[in-house]
Amino acid sequence: MSTIKVTVWNEFRHEKLSDQVKAIYPEGIHMAIAGYLKNNEDYEVKTAVLDDPEHGLTDDVLDQTDVLIWWGHVAHDEVSDEVVEKVRQKVLGGMGLIVLHSGHASKIFRKLMGTNTELLKWREDGKKERIWVIEPGHPIARGLGEYIEIPNEEMYGERFEIPAPDELVFISWFEGGEVFRSGCCYRRGQGKIFYFRPGHETFPIYHQPEVLKVISNAVDWAAPVQGPTPVYGNTAPLENI
Amino acid sequence: MSTIKVTVWNEFRHEKLSDQVKAIYPEGIHMAIAGYLKNNEDYEVKTAVLDDPEHGLTDDVLDQTDVLIWWGHVAHDEVSDEVVEKVRQKVLGGMGLIVLHSGHASKIFRKLMGTNTELLKWREDGKKERIWVIEPGHPIARGLGEYIEIPNEEMYGERFEIPAPDELVFISWFEGGEVFRSGCCYRRGQGKIFYFRPGHETFPIYHQPEVLKVISNAVDWAAPVQGPTPVYGNTAPLENI
Amino acid sequence: MSTIKVTVWNEFRHEKLSDQVKAIYPEGIHMAIAGYLKNNEDYEVKTAVLDDPEHGLTDDVLDQTDVLIWWGHVAHDEVSDEVVEKVRQKVLGGMGLIVLHSGHASKIFRKLMGTNTELLKWREDGKKERIWVIEPGHPIARGLGEYIEIPNEEMYGERFEIPAPDELVFISWFEGGEVFRSGCCYRRGQGKIFYFRPGHETFPIYHQPEVLKVISNAVDWAAPVQGPTPVYGNTAPLENI
Amino acid sequence: MSTIKVTVWNEFRHEKLSDQVKAIYPEGIHMAIAGYLKNNEDYEVKTAVLDDPEHGLTDDVLDQTDVLIWWGHVAHDEVSDEVVEKVRQKVLGGMGLIVLHSGHASKIFRKLMGTNTELLKWREDGKKERIWVIEPGHPIARGLGEYIEIPNEEMYGERFEIPAPDELVFISWFEGGEVFRSGCCYRRGQGKIFYFRPGHETFPIYHQPEVLKVISNAVDWAAPVQGPTPVYGNTAPLENI
Repeated sequence: MSTIKVTVWNEFRHEKLSDQVKAIYPEGIHMAIAGYLKNNEDYEVKTAVLDDPEHGLTDDVLDQTDVLIWWGHVAHDEVSDEVVEKVRQKVLGGMGLIVLHSGHASKIFRKLMGTNTELLKWREDGKKERIWVIEPGHPIARGLGEYIEIPNEEMYGERFEIPAPDELVFISWFEGGEVFRSGCCYRRGQGKIFYFRPGHETFPIYHQPEVLKVISNAVDWAAPVQGPTPVYGNTAPLENI
Repeated sequence: MSTIKVTVWNEFRHEKLSDQVKAIYPEGIHMAIAGYLKNNEDYEVKTAVLDDPEHGLTDDVLDQTDVLIWWGHVAHDEVSDEVVEKVRQKVLGGMGLIVLHSGHASKIFRKLMGTNTELLKWREDGKKERIWVIEPGHPIARGLGEYIEIPNEEMYGERFEIPAPDELVFISWFEGGEVFRSGCCYRRGQGKIFYFRPGHETFPIYHQPEVLKVISNAVDWAAPVQGPTPVYGNTAPLENI
Repeated sequence: MSTIKVTVWNEFRHEKLSDQVKAIYPEGIHMAIAGYLKNNEDYEVKTAVLDDPEHGLTDDVLDQTDVLIWWGHVAHDEVSDEVVEKVRQKVLGGMGLIVLHSGHASKIFRKLMGTNTELLKWREDGKKERIWVIEPGHPIARGLGEYIEIPNEEMYGERFEIPAPDELVFISWFEGGEVFRSGCCYRRGQGKIFYFRPGHETFPIYHQPEVLKVISNAVDWAAPVQGPTPVYGNTAPLENI
Repeated sequence: MSTIKVTVWNEFRHEKLSDQVKAIYPEGIHMAIAGYLKNNEDYEVKTAVLDDPEHGLTDDVLDQTDVLIWWGHVAHDEVSDEVVEKVRQKVLGGMGLIVLHSGHASKIFRKLMGTNTELLKWREDGKKERIWVIEPGHPIARGLGEYIEIPNEEMYGERFEIPAPDELVFISWFEGGEVFRSGCCYRRGQGKIFYFRPGHETFPIYHQPEVLKVISNAVDWAAPVQGPTPVYGNTAPLENI
């Protein structure tokens, strides 16, 4: 396998404003995820955050990104529409995108899905979640057990206003009585998108090995393939008919 | 809407052997379902059971059936392969099929799906089930609330070895910690198939109005459309090219 | 079946500017389609055009629309973003949407799909198209033959940058060597969307009975069902657990 | 990437009976495909044919197979039901399966799909086929151009009675006026299945580099992942609820 260039993007606000979050992620959620991914010698890992110039997503950075990981929550609106559109075109051109947890309401996910993906049920009760593997043969399920148990999590419940996933890998069970489509694969343009539910900032989700394993599996799955570059527009008939 | 001819098929063994089941379904599960459907003047409803000659599924009956409803549990193996193949060809030719609960392990469902659909988790604990509507715009969700609650049910849990449904309408939550794809739509050949999970014989599931409403919605959805009849085999080139 | 309220929307520019188009559609493409649909007593049919105030799509009109049909070509950019967003929310809330031919590049279709749906191959050569029915059991194929032949059409060719359809009903063959996914069903939010390819303004496509039949079938398929209205946001745990 | 163990299975009858076929595939179709795959040092390649004991598919061979490639045509019925069922269970347990051309009518493909996959249109006219890439971002499209042109082929035309593919990668255009879903991905159980259309025995299809490239890409895609092994049957409630 050739090297996969991964950029982990984080809003990086909670970690500066809340002592509780800072205690869990002293360097930020992005560094927890990037730190894990760096153990894989097939990855070349960068990070970028909202308050970097151009949110850290310059043309240079995007041109050097095979898979972009996205975590955001309280500042979705501060992401510039110009950067969002640039990222969207990169995804449609083949770059992988992994959207985590509250990133469901990010501009980039909403624009790529076309629906009101901010719509779902939620409850910050810190109760138990079980993420069941529905497709054990899917590459994103590699190395997992039958389910991932997260002892304390924020609940997300259906109805979640997403297009039906092209492949549904995980369904979550919540102690309070809800279910959720927690691992959703999409192909859009030449790119692949994976939405993965866990990750509330007040719990140590991104220190849990199975959660990190899923993110790493998703990087492998979402990496671009060198397929054909379609030609669009007014075309002559193919010859020799 | 023109008349839809519905045949409700039942194994009809539990009701004769168990006083508990007989108390709930004195005339059999098929009669409980058929009784409800007969209230709809758009339906013409028949019943058939395993111990009828040819299991009640003669050529005449099948030719006069638009949608077949199937409940079986302890005697799947007693259904003759010949009848199963006849039913399968009818479905592929356009007849709708609704498979209920333990019918997941029936010969007809296994053959149409191609996988080991008998494989799932189960537990007869009589605890709570919540069937969440995942696709509120689907015709099978007509007239429902956000979820159906069944106070006492047998649990079915994932992994359920089915092909990914063409449309996933319901996901169940179980009190004991499991989830299940409970409302699964398939198109096969020119026919439509709906698998609907609830229905254990020791609970009064088919007296619950929302469950019956789903079955009726599924009848409407699965009824044949008068589409083209494909021509197969060695064909001449289309003219005038 | 209860009445379905249909609004046929047309850009209505070609018909005023080109004698060739005017000769085919003297009252506009919308009137050709509406005229056909009015023969069905289950439909209540209105029309609206770009140059009407608010493009004819006022709140009142949209509130009284079950299914919206959309034809546009040269003036996609003149449709106001505000109206587009209003229509998008209506679709996500349950209104059906049928997008015809060059409407693939409309703002409303692009926003709902999330991809660059304007990207495809095209050629105005007026050669033959055969639209093959791939799913003969689909309600949109009701009453059709195995294929629809259009003697003279504009070619559209793959790669067409759309999300993989939830259901693919038609694939077109073009004399010049191309193929195209010509009948694409999507469920988005609580609404249904059907993209149907034929319809170039310089050919009498919307006078051809099979094409009109497909549009009518799609109206039936896309009409809203009265499913549950999801509750979103911060929710209390369900009681009695 | 770790080694992928590939077994190429061939009916191997045409090559012995027809001088025309023998001239194209002197050692058999299996050897042409295996010869190409052996150039990839990540693969360990074996072959097996119908007339071997147990059709060459002993338990030992299957246990040592990650991906099975299947070509058959005139002797589908000679494949023993016992071997077919063994192969089916292996696929459902995770082994990849690539079904080529006339293999659409094989017992193994029919059983895994559940439909009458032998039903399609065909014509041995040796005219042109263009296989268009519909999903340029799919791993099976790696390294291809926008289409593969096969100068002389047998035509296969829709309607093809298959379940709608989980992913549709290729659509064929035929000179005589037909279209065909030529590259179809399915997930069944823990296994992956790819149907690939080209390959008539009287044309040198499996000497064409792009066709061989697709088969190799499909091997990579279909190789098993080490996902969870589901537990089925009567299960105790998960603890600590």
